[in-house]
Amino acid sequence: MKASQFLISTLKEAPADAEIVSHKLMMRAGMIKRLGAGIYNYMPMGLRVIRKVEAIIREEMVRAGAVELLMPVVQPAELWQETGRFDKMGPELLRVKDRHGRDFVIQPTSEEVITDIARQELRSYKQLPKNLFHIQTKFRDERRPRFGLMRGREFTMKDAYSFDRDAEAAGKSYDAMFAAYCRIFDRLGLEYRAVAADTGAIGGDRSHEFQVIADTGEDAIVYCPTSSYAANIELAEALAPEAGRQAATQALALTPTPGKSTCADVAALLGLPLTQTVKSLVLATDTRDEQGNVVASQVWLLLVRGDHDLNEVKAGKVEGLKEGFRFASTGEIEAHFGCKPGYLGPIGLQGVKVVADRTVAAMSDFVCGANQVDHHYTGANWGRDLPEPDLVADIRNVVAGERSPDGQGVLAIQRGIEVGHVFYLGKKYSEAMNATFLAEDGKPRPFEMGCYGIGVTRLLGAAIEQGHDERGIVWPVSMAPFEAVICPIGMDRSEAVRDAAQQLYAALQAAGVDVLLDDRGERPGAMFADWELVGVPVRVVLGDRGLKDGVAEVQGRRDAAATAVPVGELVAQVKARLQG
Amino acid sequence: MKASQFLISTLKEAPADAEIVSHKLMMRAGMIKRLGAGIYNYMPMGLRVIRKVEAIIREEMVRAGAVELLMPVVQPAELWQETGRFDKMGPELLRVKDRHGRDFVIQPTSEEVITDIARQELRSYKQLPKNLFHIQTKFRDERRPRFGLMRGREFTMKDAYSFDRDAEAAGKSYDAMFAAYCRIFDRLGLEYRAVAADTGAIGGDRSHEFQVIADTGEDAIVYCPTSSYAANIELAEALAPEAGRQAATQALALTPTPGKSTCADVAALLGLPLTQTVKSLVLATDTRDEQGNVVASQVWLLLVRGDHDLNEVKAGKVEGLKEGFRFASTGEIEAHFGCKPGYLGPIGLQGVKVVADRTVAAMSDFVCGANQVDHHYTGANWGRDLPEPDLVADIRNVVAGERSPDGQGVLAIQRGIEVGHVFYLGKKYSEAMNATFLAEDGKPRPFEMGCYGIGVTRLLGAAIEQGHDERGIVWPVSMAPFEAVICPIGMDRSEAVRDAAQQLYAALQAAGVDVLLDDRGERPGAMFADWELVGVPVRVVLGDRGLKDGVAEVQGRRDAAATAVPVGELVAQVKARLQG
Repeated sequence: MKASQFLISTLKEAPADAEIVSHKLMMRAGMIKRLGAGIYNYMPMGLRVIRKVEAIIREEMVRAGAVELLMPVVQPAELWQETGRFDKMGPELLRVKDRHGRDFVIQPTSEEVITDIARQELRSYKQLPKNLFHIQTKFRDERRPRFGLMRGREFTMKDAYSFDRDAEAAGKSYDAMFAAYCRIFDRLGLEYRAVAADTGAIGGDRSHEFQVIADTGEDAIVYCPTSSYAANIELAEALAPEAGRQAATQALALTPTPGKSTCADVAALLGLPLTQTVKSLVLATDTRDEQGNVVASQVWLLLVRGDHDLNEVKAGKVEGLKEGFRFASTGEIEAHFGCKPGYLGPIGLQGVKVVADRTVAAMSDFVCGANQVDHHYTGANWGRDLPEPDLVADIRNVVAGERSPDGQGVLAIQRGIEVGHVFYLGKKYSEAMNATFLAEDGKPRPFEMGCYGIGVTRLLGAAIEQGHDERGIVWPVSMAPFEAVICPIGMDRSEAVRDAAQQLYAALQAAGVDVLLDDRGERPGAMFADWELVGVPVRVVLGDRGLKDGVAEVQGRRDAAATAVPVGELVAQVKARLQG
Repeated sequence: MKASQFLISTLKEAPADAEIVSHKLMMRAGMIKRLGAGIYNYMPMGLRVIRKVEAIIREEMVRAGAVELLMPVVQPAELWQETGRFDKMGPELLRVKDRHGRDFVIQPTSEEVITDIARQELRSYKQLPKNLFHIQTKFRDERRPRFGLMRGREFTMKDAYSFDRDAEAAGKSYDAMFAAYCRIFDRLGLEYRAVAADTGAIGGDRSHEFQVIADTGEDAIVYCPTSSYAANIELAEALAPEAGRQAATQALALTPTPGKSTCADVAALLGLPLTQTVKSLVLATDTRDEQGNVVASQVWLLLVRGDHDLNEVKAGKVEGLKEGFRFASTGEIEAHFGCKPGYLGPIGLQGVKVVADRTVAAMSDFVCGANQVDHHYTGANWGRDLPEPDLVADIRNVVAGERSPDGQGVLAIQRGIEVGHVFYLGKKYSEAMNATFLAEDGKPRPFEMGCYGIGVTRLLGAAIEQGHDERGIVWPVSMAPFEAVICPIGMDRSEAVRDAAQQLYAALQAAGVDVLLDDRGERPGAMFADWELVGVPVRVVLGDRGLKDGVAEVQGRRDAAATAVPVGELVAQVKARLQG
């Protein structure tokens, strides 16, 4: 490609609404262009990256035995009503009526349509296993779209769906996709981690997120550097302290803590470690009649150590909270605790269910709110000052440095950006949509399904969050819009430079290098800045001075300086750097 | 690809709603699957064809210097309001509101968005010419979607837009796209014709449709076999008769024609040729005030020869009808003609504007309605029995056999399916959206634009309408989902067949042939029927009997019988047939 024939539009400044580095750099590099909130034109430079990502995904999906099809963007509501998602999903599902007033959705995902296809096309166990995928435009009407392609409204995803005869076969399909995803992210050249993820209401442990490691990532991922343990923060298990609960050494004392309503403030005031304090969180659950009216409510007190954070996903797995919970209202709190929030605690309660985190259950001589404004208790002890908790459960986020659940070391925490997800669906959709095949015994049986997504456009943002410096994007070679760029200096006035540039351009093309010749006639500084911003992995600079000595300058995107390379060795050098 | 790993779902019968052969065959061959009215899943077999078509289009667009980007499916209404199309377009424009109540459209085309990109990105004449294209999913909410991919609601199109500094440069861009389209349709292996098309309100003669020739086509295309003249029926000019008007030989006579209200019936009753009769069509135009209320109407009588058809596009170019016309109401007809339709004619009218087709203006001694029920005039003559017409114009469709407008022979008419369109837009969009660039003189000037569409999914239907027989689809090699299929007979019980099939499969793949190995274990008859239905160009049948003699059977999709070919020559034979 010659630059003069391409559309290059780099910007010195990122627009004001670009908050994160990948968004800023993609805008500045002219890869995307905003059309509306969360809706972007994929400009030629960005589309090249998307196509490279898609090609790698497609190759590895096919290698893993998946078959590509394409399901529509605009989907009739009927199928979404079969699974109940047409009503259940919130306003992020973009609904539209056609000219006849019929309901449709702009697809955010395609479980319904693929299950509909399977129930018609896959009739016998002999056709199984089958894995069908597509790469398609999707739409999710985010309340607050932001971060460019990272949380856009219109985006491109690959989604695959596997259909199997039984859970064992479904496990094999899952494993095959897991392996394919590893190959995909390896080939994309990204540093990533596959982490076990929560499976929500469906249950089972077959869900993994593929997280691109980046300090700016929204997700916390937990792993053990000395073992294979890795999970997202929602799932990573926090163990009880090994030592167990120590004997009480202090007496319970009502202690004035005027104006100190947080554990940190109380600990500071009392000169105690934060780990000696207990944090109280008040939830409520509702019982409803058949009309959906609330007929009774139960108030819950959840206790975590002062330096720990409640994990709402884990809380949602506690017996009694599984069907859904909410944070209690101020009215409910005052009715049950006789006190406003900030000074709540577990001592002297009536009719409140108390759930203690495993760590809290093992504490002694702890500090907690006294259910009295401006007061806390110190020296509180289970069994003596208050009854043992109704339930003890893992309801908090793990923290770095604690024991790994597999017993193989201590946990570390990284930030990550979720770019892929493999999920064992089981029979959720096949049963809802009566999608069955004839098993070997001649009887209809619902498919065991899995779904497997990769956010194609999101991957661009994630790769940039991982790979950038002060000059711009640092793409992995396999994702770069161009692998190499030739920057001729003074091409318009020097025949030698022009000839050398054209020859090198032809030679690199012949060698299979995806090369761009910058024939725009820009000054060297402007050229270099553009291609560093765009993130082309290898740059070759040709100028009269070097050519007199038979050399050109080669510089990798991460290199601090250029290397002089004899003209005859340029192709080999460029190829070597791309492979290295 | 091995059949066992693919998704093959052929049907014996087409669904009842499939009216035309391409729709029936695509459904039967399992290429598409209906999801809703005019909305289809592209199944793996069909998607392979789409991808091959897209690849050829993409290659030729890039070869012609166009640059690919991707514009969103969901587009903000604001841009569509700038050009007025948000309000002007009918219900075929699918409109949707997002969660905040803002208006969006599901794009049927992208003039607005590309013009918005151009006015931001293309700032100087130095960046011109530029041609930007994308291949994207589109939606048009057809009132009555039908014919499968031919008139669907969701479909895939390539659209390109050129931006030029002046009309001359725009003409060159147009020519380059015209040439690229010829290469594309040549490579697709289709019989097609590029025909001049009407440019509507924009004017100029720079519009061509690319029509795939098929007897079942919706469009009539006119061409001269002995010259390069070709136009669609809306545009093809009908010349006046060479001989001119003959002198009157008959007297005007009021003739009873009871119950005979059509020209054909009247001619039969009177024993006259249909070419002696004149057909009367009554139109009306309205004058409106600023509020849009009709303040006056004018009634028009359009006359074409009894065997000719009115061409409404041509009528719309007549002075006085350009601003829009409608067919007159029965009330208006009775008020102006004193007679109900069926016996209307041009004699004795007041306040009606009469437009005669060129042929009618040259007639003498003609038959026309008498404005009296059950009566016609015979022997009518211009100037003597009625005034010369107010206007003489070309307002009819040409018919086969008449003189070509270029004077180089006589016209022929074929049926065609429009699959591509190149169109010189001029400044329509750039002026409406104030899209300018800085010209060499430093002044802003609106872009000269062209737009260039190809209906990717429609092409599949058109190719099948052109290429099919009683057994199924006959694809051109470049569009076929697979180029060749290996059908091993008794693969499960014969090691020789199995080995030969695997070897041939590997050898054909190594030779670059897109080959499918049918390893499903189906009976020969079922295998053959499937691949004839799907339309694979070359079939190789391997069986024990032939292999004993060292031969296999090769049969092209159009061949009446198979040819025995030595096993060692199979690859060369298959390749030769694919190239032939």
